[in-house]
Amino acid sequence: MNNSLLDGIGSGQLKRIIVAKIKINVDLLEAIEEIVKKEKIKRGIILGGVGALQKAIFRNMFEFPNTYPIRPENRIYLEVEKPMELVSLTGHISPKKDGTPYIHAHFSASMVEGKTVVTMGGHLIKGNITHVRIAVAIAELENIPMNTRVGKLLKSYEMHIGT
Amino acid sequence: MNNSLLDGIGSGQLKRIIVAKIKINVDLLEAIEEIVKKEKIKRGIILGGVGALQKAIFRNMFEFPNTYPIRPENRIYLEVEKPMELVSLTGHISPKKDGTPYIHAHFSASMVEGKTVVTMGGHLIKGNITHVRIAVAIAELENIPMNTRVGKLLKSYEMHIGT
Amino acid sequence: MNNSLLDGIGSGQLKRIIVAKIKINVDLLEAIEEIVKKEKIKRGIILGGVGALQKAIFRNMFEFPNTYPIRPENRIYLEVEKPMELVSLTGHISPKKDGTPYIHAHFSASMVEGKTVVTMGGHLIKGNITHVRIAVAIAELENIPMNTRVGKLLKSYEMHIGT
Repeated sequence: MNNSLLDGIGSGQLKRIIVAKIKINVDLLEAIEEIVKKEKIKRGIILGGVGALQKAIFRNMFEFPNTYPIRPENRIYLEVEKPMELVSLTGHISPKKDGTPYIHAHFSASMVEGKTVVTMGGHLIKGNITHVRIAVAIAELENIPMNTRVGKLLKSYEMHIGT
Repeated sequence: MNNSLLDGIGSGQLKRIIVAKIKINVDLLEAIEEIVKKEKIKRGIILGGVGALQKAIFRNMFEFPNTYPIRPENRIYLEVEKPMELVSLTGHISPKKDGTPYIHAHFSASMVEGKTVVTMGGHLIKGNITHVRIAVAIAELENIPMNTRVGKLLKSYEMHIGT
Repeated sequence: MNNSLLDGIGSGQLKRIIVAKIKINVDLLEAIEEIVKKEKIKRGIILGGVGALQKAIFRNMFEFPNTYPIRPENRIYLEVEKPMELVSLTGHISPKKDGTPYIHAHFSASMVEGKTVVTMGGHLIKGNITHVRIAVAIAELENIPMNTRVGKLLKSYEMHIGT
């Protein structure tokens, strides 16, 4: 796999699809964590999400670090508090060494700015507060060698295919 | 479920995946409605969509209403008529009380503005007109308690897990 | 199918889900091509992708052509070289007449601009270079009449449902 562009590849079966409706005024990532815990999802793919947000924190890197891990000072945490529409939600769930599931998700949300509409996005952290009609769909996978490990370069959690 | 962040959660099986190619110069939401009707999809997840648009209406709330339902005057309906690329399409299909399927979808589209590229997004309503190469994928679900009901707070249609 | 808004519609089964972690400093589309080749995927849906990019080329049409095919002079190829987060990845894989798989994908990425965050998107071509934590999920399909053909109007590759 020397000339490969991949760090790892694996495949598995779809066990089931989980759909949840999320309450208003709650944290979106915490709600996804509750879905994962309640349904005992070890490995999965976030298929999407819709609905409205009332507050978002768009976490984005503005510079690559000289040494890893990436630190908060390499990032912007842009807080926006206004009506927003969740227009994309993507990511995956895979277990850490101790078996607890780790969620890696990115999202984007559209909003009115003046007379126009803009869309912002970023890494999903805590602090995104739901408004009405938020629903999320997750595909639970089985027999797929998909885990979360501390990456050698990254020095923080990332997907690792294999044991 | 008192401390729960969820209004409801359920799971089911994937019955099949439907893929459709949509004609040029037609309404995107009406085309998705035709897919749902033709294939008799009661419950499903919109997995994604690609292709070009020639006109979009980006519906976004700019203020939360004092009393529900949300009304047109709480929203902006930004019309854009130029070449656009559909870059995200997410949402779900679930039946209303009378059995007819309700589609809740959000989308985003990228476009050239001056020398740069911007992406806008919003709730998918009628008025988005396709250009070339629009294709949409939907996962049909079965044995999942996913319905559309008039929400108690919202006073309009939203996903309801349960009967 | 005269009044239909669809050029074609078909359905099939999900064979399996493939997940890959992609190396840093490689071409995103070439990596997806490697996934497709290595796993012998003929037909599939790109379910999503997350992670960081260090360079992106956002291909977008700025004018519709008078005659097809669409040409590079009808498009902008906006190059951005800075940290970005992949916030959506959507598309499909289907075989050309000679059996080789064709990948049609769109993506969007968020980034810091000044004190704010913007999201750009477009058609995925070569030239998008990965940074850390890029992972992609693909649903492989079977028994679905989904192919890639040169479109009569478009005069270049597009999805064709049927043989």
